[in-house]
Amino acid sequence: MTSTPSTASADTQSNQSEVLATFAANLSFERIPRDVVERTVNLYVDWLGSTLAGKGARPVESIARFARTTGPADGPAEVLIDGSRTSPFFAAMVNGAAAHFVEQDDVHNGSVFHPAAVVFPVALALAQQLGASGEELITAAVAGYEVGIRIGEFLGRSHYKVFHTTGTAGTVAAAATAGRLLKLSPVAMLDAFGSAGTQAAGLWEFLRDAADSKQLHTAMAAANGLMAAQLAADGFKGAKHILEGAKGMAAGMSSDADPARLVDRLGERWATVETSFKYHAACRHTHPAADALLDVIVKNKLKPQEIERVVAHVHQGAIDVLGAVVKPQTVHQAKFNMGTVLAIISYYGYAGVNEFEQHFLADPIVAFRGKVEMVYDVEVDRAYPVRWIGKVSVHLTDGRVLHGRVDEPKGDPGNTLSREEISTKLRQLVKFSGALGEAEVEHLLNDAWRIVSQERVGRVVGHAAVAA
Amino acid sequence: MTSTPSTASADTQSNQSEVLATFAANLSFERIPRDVVERTVNLYVDWLGSTLAGKGARPVESIARFARTTGPADGPAEVLIDGSRTSPFFAAMVNGAAAHFVEQDDVHNGSVFHPAAVVFPVALALAQQLGASGEELITAAVAGYEVGIRIGEFLGRSHYKVFHTTGTAGTVAAAATAGRLLKLSPVAMLDAFGSAGTQAAGLWEFLRDAADSKQLHTAMAAANGLMAAQLAADGFKGAKHILEGAKGMAAGMSSDADPARLVDRLGERWATVETSFKYHAACRHTHPAADALLDVIVKNKLKPQEIERVVAHVHQGAIDVLGAVVKPQTVHQAKFNMGTVLAIISYYGYAGVNEFEQHFLADPIVAFRGKVEMVYDVEVDRAYPVRWIGKVSVHLTDGRVLHGRVDEPKGDPGNTLSREEISTKLRQLVKFSGALGEAEVEHLLNDAWRIVSQERVGRVVGHAAVAA
Repeated sequence: MTSTPSTASADTQSNQSEVLATFAANLSFERIPRDVVERTVNLYVDWLGSTLAGKGARPVESIARFARTTGPADGPAEVLIDGSRTSPFFAAMVNGAAAHFVEQDDVHNGSVFHPAAVVFPVALALAQQLGASGEELITAAVAGYEVGIRIGEFLGRSHYKVFHTTGTAGTVAAAATAGRLLKLSPVAMLDAFGSAGTQAAGLWEFLRDAADSKQLHTAMAAANGLMAAQLAADGFKGAKHILEGAKGMAAGMSSDADPARLVDRLGERWATVETSFKYHAACRHTHPAADALLDVIVKNKLKPQEIERVVAHVHQGAIDVLGAVVKPQTVHQAKFNMGTVLAIISYYGYAGVNEFEQHFLADPIVAFRGKVEMVYDVEVDRAYPVRWIGKVSVHLTDGRVLHGRVDEPKGDPGNTLSREEISTKLRQLVKFSGALGEAEVEHLLNDAWRIVSQERVGRVVGHAAVAA
Repeated sequence: MTSTPSTASADTQSNQSEVLATFAANLSFERIPRDVVERTVNLYVDWLGSTLAGKGARPVESIARFARTTGPADGPAEVLIDGSRTSPFFAAMVNGAAAHFVEQDDVHNGSVFHPAAVVFPVALALAQQLGASGEELITAAVAGYEVGIRIGEFLGRSHYKVFHTTGTAGTVAAAATAGRLLKLSPVAMLDAFGSAGTQAAGLWEFLRDAADSKQLHTAMAAANGLMAAQLAADGFKGAKHILEGAKGMAAGMSSDADPARLVDRLGERWATVETSFKYHAACRHTHPAADALLDVIVKNKLKPQEIERVVAHVHQGAIDVLGAVVKPQTVHQAKFNMGTVLAIISYYGYAGVNEFEQHFLADPIVAFRGKVEMVYDVEVDRAYPVRWIGKVSVHLTDGRVLHGRVDEPKGDPGNTLSREEISTKLRQLVKFSGALGEAEVEHLLNDAWRIVSQERVGRVVGHAAVAA
């Protein structure tokens, strides 16, 4: 970590941080292509579902209690899981925690970064405070996605091996989102990047212990990013090369950082639309194998009892993240266990929140779990993280071996979810957590799909609750 | 960063984090030797001075404004720079920012960690909220010092090269302090460590740009550590091996971590009393050379005009940190510039807050600055960080070359400050910032020196203000 040849020294006068900050500060709604706006609205609605699904989850409610006892009793920004209001910092914190709990929030493959969980909590909280328009909210969100994705790609695979990129890159993404809504100048946006980057944190160590840190990471990435931008608006200065500098994020937390990725085709390549929706409620690293297995099962009309064992051919990152979980003790941990996910796929054809909640420790699932093995695959690993290929070998009790493959798991850009599928997913998630009644959900959906036409972003849940 | 041989894998069942957390949770006032208690009271009073000195500093006031607009309008914990009250989270944040601004807060040599700035803001805020006794406050502070110092030593020199240890180790130190006041069980204390460690952050990149991140680091280390303990008290789970685990702090942020340091003679070696007071208001890396130069000047009755050039023989860490600042643009940056510090020493015999404020850009100081050079010294570097040896070669205009040396700079444990010197330093610092009137200061000092006898920690500044 102490010497990263690819990061810049003070002498080379690198300016990737500055270029990226300037892009985020200057982004206007008019410059964003129509299809990018539409996809961002889809990502927004998808985020609402994931956030409402977090209601009642122990770690989320714990962070909500902290926010209630530590923050103000009222404010301009809405906490979605209970409709209460507080300052933007705490709304971003609680909504950030909630969005990531059921593991169905979006993910960008190339950066292995979950943008929605850290970008939209900030976009909504500040838009509500400032009375910003839906166009402004979407513009700020796109700024956050474009920035965060590029930082995740820049930090590389060595970073993701130890650090939860959504916590680290996510803090700067949140700052970009907040900075855009606050209309920061390029110079102040760079200050916001500096303060956010020097607070960027999040380690994978918690996963083995089934600890609650994942919710803390998204909560604090959102809150600290927002804080960084608010401080910058007040004149608080940040480092000018926090990303690529000799003592910046990559110098400290990566050994394969590529500064060119930070400014990759800004304004031409819209990384936002490369973001995948999560169809299954599990770690994204399980999805390619899950879809490949499902394909084999459907095509061959297999019953789970006919399957003797399954080999999932995976990239190294999957082994790094999922390898820590052997015998899942909690629902959340089960979502990081390849065996459990493939078992649920075999029995139910879908690994959703209800399937995990009800069955992850059932005898047949536990038995099937033991029949699943992950092995490193050169082709899959080489394609990763740009493409997440799914390959499985299914050994049957009759001796046959069937091979399954998907090149784009369900939810990926080339196999994306329709608006109707996103609405259905949201309805299922809200029903799962009981955050809202059915009529309230329809009202919320109706408002949310028309976010771009809102002249002033109003309440999301409160509105729905009042109307219901 | 991705493979650190000295950190433990999941299989080795390392338990240093657990042992350290258990020590912090079980520490009682009765077990702390009398001289350690007395020194901790000295450190507390010294911290009060540094914190009050932060009043009016732009970055500190900026964080205070953020706290006012984001937090509650009232609460049990006191913000020292203005006597206002808020929740412990925000009091810890603002007091943490304030303590580190004038660069006169304490430092532990071996860990290159500034404990007071992150430990006492948490200890005071929670003690005020809980109505804890002075003995409880001091016990919690010792827990924080012992934990933070050992983590700083554990993370090692490779960590400090890129990371501001006070921000990273400091977050866990703050959690230990808060956890002790909250009377966390050893298991919950370990949870607090996990949540704090996964939020630990702070990069040196800001220094070259004279940015404000140093205040942000201490502010957020204090606030996030406190939050981690409060969450743990509420059942929020953290990683069990956040320090030494295969994807923990050292795995991500160090290449020379030594887990044995984490549990080094717990309860026998009191690292707290190894802490140095800062006599000069500059980066500690400049103090050894400053004292060595002062010694040569005093012994030889030199005038600044007789000095042609000065070579400071330093450890690599001094070059790493101070090397970034060539032409200081701000007072704060000047405190990280060896040339400016030695120039001020030559002209005024003391590098205090007033000397920097009034003279750092004066022509004679700027001219002298250019005559100072740092060179790496094998002996000094080998002794570091356990001993901070000061060595200078002073080349005179008459051709003579004089050599100066100090083995323990003023303020180090073997050359510590008396209570009278600490009181004098506090009076100077408060006068500098104008935080309190003279009568208020005496009242505050009178209370502060008797902290151990307080049955309930009350207001610090408010009391003084009321009594004045």
